[in-house]
Amino acid sequence: MFRHVVMFRWSEDGVSDETKTAIAAGLDKLAGLPMTLGYHHGPDAGVSDGNWDYVAVGDFATVEDYKAYAVEPGHVALITDLIKPNISARAAVQYDVG
Amino acid sequence: MFRHVVMFRWSEDGVSDETKTAIAAGLDKLAGLPMTLGYHHGPDAGVSDGNWDYVAVGDFATVEDYKAYAVEPGHVALITDLIKPNISARAAVQYDVG
Repeated sequence: MFRHVVMFRWSEDGVSDETKTAIAAGLDKLAGLPMTLGYHHGPDAGVSDGNWDYVAVGDFATVEDYKAYAVEPGHVALITDLIKPNISARAAVQYDVG
Repeated sequence: MFRHVVMFRWSEDGVSDETKTAIAAGLDKLAGLPMTLGYHHGPDAGVSDGNWDYVAVGDFATVEDYKAYAVEPGHVALITDLIKPNISARAAVQYDVG
């Protein structure tokens, strides 16, 4: 299995609850893409100091499925229209889960 | 389910393969802790520019199990002795997977 992990820090200007809800709804749609085996995302639970704000973990059968997901038009639009304008930092790793 | 996600960037001074192997072996041991449901970690696959270097994803039944893991002596020793001296940055999120 091939896993994509991405974390965000929200913009320091603040992000409205409405926008956060729209981003979560957009991420929920990615869970339904045909190349996605599993997709779980959510805000930091607040149990540790210094954490980032949000994480998404997507599981794919192959690296090729991940690459197809990365360029899927709905995914790209979500990043361009809603995520990028509302974050101050992004951290990502893709890795073989085995 | 409650999930812990953590990413690292290796130290800019470089980290030997021997040290990376020791860190991976230490993380493998965390997979065997009684409070750990699942634990998968690995180096970035190199399919995307700008990624961080390493990720670990641990799954726990409850937030209490995660908190027990966080202070487990073998875990704390791994962080103190091997991880902290060899990274330049750490990013973490814990979240409810549902």
